[in-house]
Amino acid sequence: VTLANDDRPAAERRALLVHAHSEPDSFVTAMRDLARRELREAGWSVAESDLYAMGFNPILSPADFGARKNPEHLVYALEQRHGFETGTLATDISSEIEKVMAADLLVFTFPVFWFSVPAILKGWIDRVFISGPFYGGRRIYGSGGLAGKRALCAFSLGSRAHMFGSGSLHGDLEFGMLRHFLQGALGYVGLDVLEPFTAYHVPYVDEAARRDLLDRFRAHVAGLDTLPVLPMPKLEQFDATFAPLPPAE
Amino acid sequence: VTLANDDRPAAERRALLVHAHSEPDSFVTAMRDLARRELREAGWSVAESDLYAMGFNPILSPADFGARKNPEHLVYALEQRHGFETGTLATDISSEIEKVMAADLLVFTFPVFWFSVPAILKGWIDRVFISGPFYGGRRIYGSGGLAGKRALCAFSLGSRAHMFGSGSLHGDLEFGMLRHFLQGALGYVGLDVLEPFTAYHVPYVDEAARRDLLDRFRAHVAGLDTLPVLPMPKLEQFDATFAPLPPAE
Repeated sequence: VTLANDDRPAAERRALLVHAHSEPDSFVTAMRDLARRELREAGWSVAESDLYAMGFNPILSPADFGARKNPEHLVYALEQRHGFETGTLATDISSEIEKVMAADLLVFTFPVFWFSVPAILKGWIDRVFISGPFYGGRRIYGSGGLAGKRALCAFSLGSRAHMFGSGSLHGDLEFGMLRHFLQGALGYVGLDVLEPFTAYHVPYVDEAARRDLLDRFRAHVAGLDTLPVLPMPKLEQFDATFAPLPPAE
Repeated sequence: VTLANDDRPAAERRALLVHAHSEPDSFVTAMRDLARRELREAGWSVAESDLYAMGFNPILSPADFGARKNPEHLVYALEQRHGFETGTLATDISSEIEKVMAADLLVFTFPVFWFSVPAILKGWIDRVFISGPFYGGRRIYGSGGLAGKRALCAFSLGSRAHMFGSGSLHGDLEFGMLRHFLQGALGYVGLDVLEPFTAYHVPYVDEAARRDLLDRFRAHVAGLDTLPVLPMPKLEQFDATFAPLPPAE
């Protein structure tokens, strides 16, 4: 068995589910459970980072670095590179890095808080997506450290769909409000960011609408190999200093 | 003495400095120190939330609610309202809410991580900007709970200025990457968001350039009453469901 855009048998494909909700009976946790089941049934091996259940520490701090390159003055990115090279990063970081590097697909399930990810997931990005293996210099976007891997996001909002898009109250969702995450974090490190699954108005919908949303999410996961990939900046359109080049003839 | 856009004497104006950097010798901490001095010299009273120094817990969780309205199923926003009304929110939240409500001006100093705020500051927003006093129903943007107060953000980036703006590598900064924070969090609760101060390329600049940046920040703070306010969505352009109304004649 081979799947559309990958040469390996489905059985060798590995997903990492990164989950950011505290409640087992929440809609977001139902999405995570459903993604796990769908992927396993399609032959994926599935690893998990359930951030609340792990008690994941989201605060990037000097305590992350066991042996500082510069003990006097802390520059996070420089110490991240040094910590990775010398194997002295805090173990809760290095174990997450290993899980990410072993995965072909990252699945993020979270409630949108303040048009962004919850702090516990923001901190997972802040601490785990370290300078060096994930990005550095011109190794960003299509040349980022995770190039070749994919990301699928599924999130809930209180808002309704008509509050987003051109001319709407809040403006565009994926390329406006959530751009910092979809492009600025996931795309930046080279991930192919699949069209996300957005569940609107979740706290206010009835049981039938909730089931319908979950059915649509199941189809989204089942069809992940045919989902569009969000467009990202193309490095070849920028010079060595990342200034825009004139358009090619 | 009265200042431009406020009737009260400067001595009665109150600022809250919300700071998110772990290092006393960092550029961002230098900005915070400078804001404190400038504001005090101009007669402001200054309160502070130094998030790393306080060990602020950024994780919104069931532990925030001392007496649940619904012990079976947790909906964060509903429990926030209930917790506020009954005085049963966790004390580290209620004390921050009091500081925000007592302030006329919020000053945020932070390093941009992943085109957003550090997790510790994201979690301060997640836990402190509660449904009820901060927003709810049509009480958003110009009608938000903090209408009449102002916000000034000052942040550092590793990137250079030419990587932002129309046609650039990362796109617009204030209205693109940082829109979720400047509009989606600060503007959403009614704050007048002053033009932010952006310090580019900070980890790589020399001492003279660092001093120049701090001089420019000093002038930014000294002139805060004349800074432009970022445009926000206007509620009168949307109907009761927040769908766009046809433009007025």
